[in-house]
This record gives sequence, structure tokens and C-alpha cells, in this order.
Amino acid sequence: MCDTCGCQLHDHHHHDAKVVEVNRSLLEANQQQAVANRQHIERMGAVAVNLISSPGSGKTTLLEQTIDALGETVRIGVIEGDIETERDAERIRAKGVPAVQLTTGGACHLDAPLVHGGLHVLEHFAKGAKLDLIFIENVGNLVCPATFDLGEHRRVVLLSTPEGSDKPAKYPATFRSADLVLITKSDLLAHFNFSVDEATRDAQLLKPQLDVLTLSATTGEGFDAWITYLHDLLHH
Amino acid sequence: MCDTCGCQLHDHHHHDAKVVEVNRSLLEANQQQAVANRQHIERMGAVAVNLISSPGSGKTTLLEQTIDALGETVRIGVIEGDIETERDAERIRAKGVPAVQLTTGGACHLDAPLVHGGLHVLEHFAKGAKLDLIFIENVGNLVCPATFDLGEHRRVVLLSTPEGSDKPAKYPATFRSADLVLITKSDLLAHFNFSVDEATRDAQLLKPQLDVLTLSATTGEGFDAWITYLHDLLHH
Repeated sequence: MCDTCGCQLHDHHHHDAKVVEVNRSLLEANQQQAVANRQHIERMGAVAVNLISSPGSGKTTLLEQTIDALGETVRIGVIEGDIETERDAERIRAKGVPAVQLTTGGACHLDAPLVHGGLHVLEHFAKGAKLDLIFIENVGNLVCPATFDLGEHRRVVLLSTPEGSDKPAKYPATFRSADLVLITKSDLLAHFNFSVDEATRDAQLLKPQLDVLTLSATTGEGFDAWITYLHDLLHH
Repeated sequence: MCDTCGCQLHDHHHHDAKVVEVNRSLLEANQQQAVANRQHIERMGAVAVNLISSPGSGKTTLLEQTIDALGETVRIGVIEGDIETERDAERIRAKGVPAVQLTTGGACHLDAPLVHGGLHVLEHFAKGAKLDLIFIENVGNLVCPATFDLGEHRRVVLLSTPEGSDKPAKYPATFRSADLVLITKSDLLAHFNFSVDEATRDAQLLKPQLDVLTLSATTGEGFDAWITYLHDLLHH
């Protein structure tokens, strides 16, 4: 009971039970569709990578440089998730790569049913050409996307140098769900109080043997290891 | 119907109706509690500012420098929202200011009921001393916190230079809900392709006359205007 303001503490129990039930139902439906998406992608002969990060951590810039680095030997398709705007898909299309923009209209993450639609549009855009590698760039959000399997084969979480090395400890569910952590904008390490050791240690406390790579899409430092990671994934 | 993978498109209508109903019920309960929080804060003789941004945009550093700049003439209290860890509250307490850490245990935003509890703990920490200004540092997330009124008097959205000036257009609901936008880490403007004009124009397209200030908590440039904004708020 609140003595200062006299307000009543509400009974949230019934309410919470309904929320929990709806959330479970949503997540179960998402998981079923994610399994179907993964099979769908495999029938296309492709593998899919789900990119998760805060806004402005460099997901789209990473994709632009990755498209250049992989060259024409790997056929890439991209599904872009954003709340609003087509800007990211336009940046990718400028590289000559098919890109579907999924705008969530307010929702804070992509989900598997939306990506399912995106896969069909991507196939349409690819005009019958086979794709090897599909990147799914999630909505910029370091929290909510972690809960939603989209049918990807690898989940890559980006942490940019300006954000600070305390983020794995502060957003544990997201980093625990990662297959690979990319510390991006490493050309800025000299200008920020960012400890690669702290970020790596905290991430691996959450998930032992979690791969962590450090790179800069601007200078290209560390980029070779990322490209090798993708080649290994493609030839697995 | 999905021809490629043969999966069934589910009927989401009934499901969605339940989700919508639960969301409306949650938001109504939040709004009621937000109104009570605002009255509670006013009875304390204080005003409250809700700080929203992506992870690592500089909310806690802004608070540290703001505490120093306001000095002992303004009695400050801080409610820190994080998914995990007490780190931010420890940084604020090191400045001699009472700070409550609310860990959401996975949730992507603060809500008014949680902040209500935080206000009581903050009063306990303040040991009967009157507070003038309460900062509520939200969970680092540029999407979900926008929907939840916490009972604040002003909502301040931070956008840091490394994130890029396209963010107001990409996260419109958040910037539309702001009373003030702070472009932070302005000492880095020379190193990034960030247009203050683009960010300001796009934010004001969403909400005409929205105040936008540009500052660096590191070098102190632009900080005076922010401190003046807070003094005006306190003496309104």
C-alpha cells in the first residue's frame, strides 16, 4: 500500500496470467513458423543469418562491405527489418543485391510469420536465381528481437565500440542467444573507453565458447575473419 | 498460401484480437498509474524527466555531468532502469546522489507500476530530504519505452552521433513522443557522417517546434543550453 500518494496497489495476478498465456501462444506460433522458415530456406539451397543490434551499430554498413568482400561468387539476398522507411533496402539494392524491406509499423522486432512473407518476396525479386546466403537485418533493438527465432541458421549480435563494453552484462538474453558477437567500429577503439576483454569475458560468461570477432567495416581491419566465418558457414 | 514450402497460413485474427485486448488493458493500467505517479511526484515537490535512447547513447554519462553542473542547489534523485546489473545506479551514487536501480528482469522498458515502487524506494533513500528533480533513466531501447508514460513531466530522447542522423525517420513514434531531443556525443561529429540538420528536420517533421539541442557531455560543448532547459523546467 502506498502511504504517500494514497493510491491502491492493483491486483495484477489475473492480468499477468492472461499476458503470460498470450505471450506463450505468440511464441509457440512464432517457433512453428521459424522451423518452417528454416526448412524453406534450406529447400532454396541457402543459409540465413539474423543480424541483431542496437540502432546505429552498423548492421547496414556491415552488409554493404560484406557484399563487396564476398563478390559475385556468393549470391546474396537481404531481408531488411525496420519500423519505418525503405532506406536500408535502398542502400543494399544500390549494391546490386535483391533486398526486401519489411516495415513492422511500430513493432519492435521481426517475427517468423513476417519473415516468411519476406522470403517469398525475396524469391520473387531474385527472379528464379538461386541464393546462397540470406541476411535478415532485424529492427534496431538490443532487447526484443532476441526472443524471436526467425528460422535463421546463425544469429550474429553486433556491439559497436561507442555503445560501451558493459552491454553484454546489461543485455544478457540477447548475447546468450548469439552464435557470434561482432564488435564493430573497431577503428574507434582509440577514442572510447571500450574494453574488448571485458565485452568478450562477459559474453563468454553468458555462453562459454561464444565466438567474438572485432572488426571495422570502414577500415577493413578484422574483416577477413568475418568473411572466413561466412565461407565456413556456406561450405558446412 | 505458401507454394514453395507448403506450409499453411494460419488464421491470426482471433489470436490478434486477444493480443490487442491484452495490450489495451496493459496500457490503460499503465496510464492510470502514470497519472498517479505524476501526482505523487508533484506532492513530493519535484519534477520528473524520463530519458529514452538506444543502449550506449550516453544517458548515464549525461546524468553524471548534469549532477556536477547543477551542483548542490538542485536536489536530484535518480531511478535507473536496466534489464540486469546495478552498474548505472552505482555510477550515480558515486556522485553522492540517491539512486534506485530497477532491474526489469528481461522486460524491454520501464512501466508506471514499476516506477511507482521506485519512487517509494527513492524517498526512503533520500531519508526525508526534499527532492527537486527526479531523472528516470529508461532501459536502453529506442522503441518500446515510447509507449509507456511513467508519470514524467518531460520526456527527453537522446540520439548519439555514432548512431546516425537517419534515426528520427526510422523510429518515428519515439521521437514524436519527445519533449526534447538531445543529440549527444557532438565531439564526434567530425568523425561521423551525421547531419544535425537532417536529424533536426526529420524530428520536427514528426512534431513541429520540437526542441533539439546538441551537446557533448565529454567536452561540455552545448551543455549550458541543457542546464538552462532544466532550470526553466524547475522554475516553471
